[in-house]
Amino acid sequence: MSIQHTVVFRLVHPEGSVEEQAFLDAAPGILASIPGVQNFAVARQVSAKSTLTHQFSMTFADQDGYDGYNNHPEHVAFVANRWGAEVAEFQEYDFVGIA
Amino acid sequence: MSIQHTVVFRLVHPEGSVEEQAFLDAAPGILASIPGVQNFAVARQVSAKSTLTHQFSMTFADQDGYDGYNNHPEHVAFVANRWGAEVAEFQEYDFVGIA
Repeated sequence: MSIQHTVVFRLVHPEGSVEEQAFLDAAPGILASIPGVQNFAVARQVSAKSTLTHQFSMTFADQDGYDGYNNHPEHVAFVANRWGAEVAEFQEYDFVGIA
Repeated sequence: MSIQHTVVFRLVHPEGSVEEQAFLDAAPGILASIPGVQNFAVARQVSAKSTLTHQFSMTFADQDGYDGYNNHPEHVAFVANRWGAEVAEFQEYDFVGIA
């Protein structure tokens, strides 16, 4: 059963900054090319009911695909080198459709 | 620009209960028929990194469609009669695609 993996986040960079754009540009190039990642998308979070400002979303065909992504060296390096330094707060959610 | 409106939530009802199923069955019938609502979907939230267990997702063609939904008597009644009594915790997010 396909799984939609999402993370909603807020960067340490000011909105509209060069650093923000550089992060948003770099991430898809690194993450979307990892085997198993489908439908990689970047969105702005616009509800005033959350302090988070962006979302990455992707789908995996199954749990094996998800695990392969999580353990892939490019993903591990991205989390260590960019995510930890540039993300101020975040929340992960994974969705499986039921209706 | 189209807007994806989402709410991730946890019910007061036990997982797998008749009450849970009744809520999940009733909501789409009420909410998806409100004018302007597109792509209404129900998902299970399966990441252990969140205590929330379900998501409703829908899209609106524009902010007018979103406002019409928010103010529609069927939506207002659903929030007053079902949501407030049966939802233990929730978080709203609205997404606009940028890549």
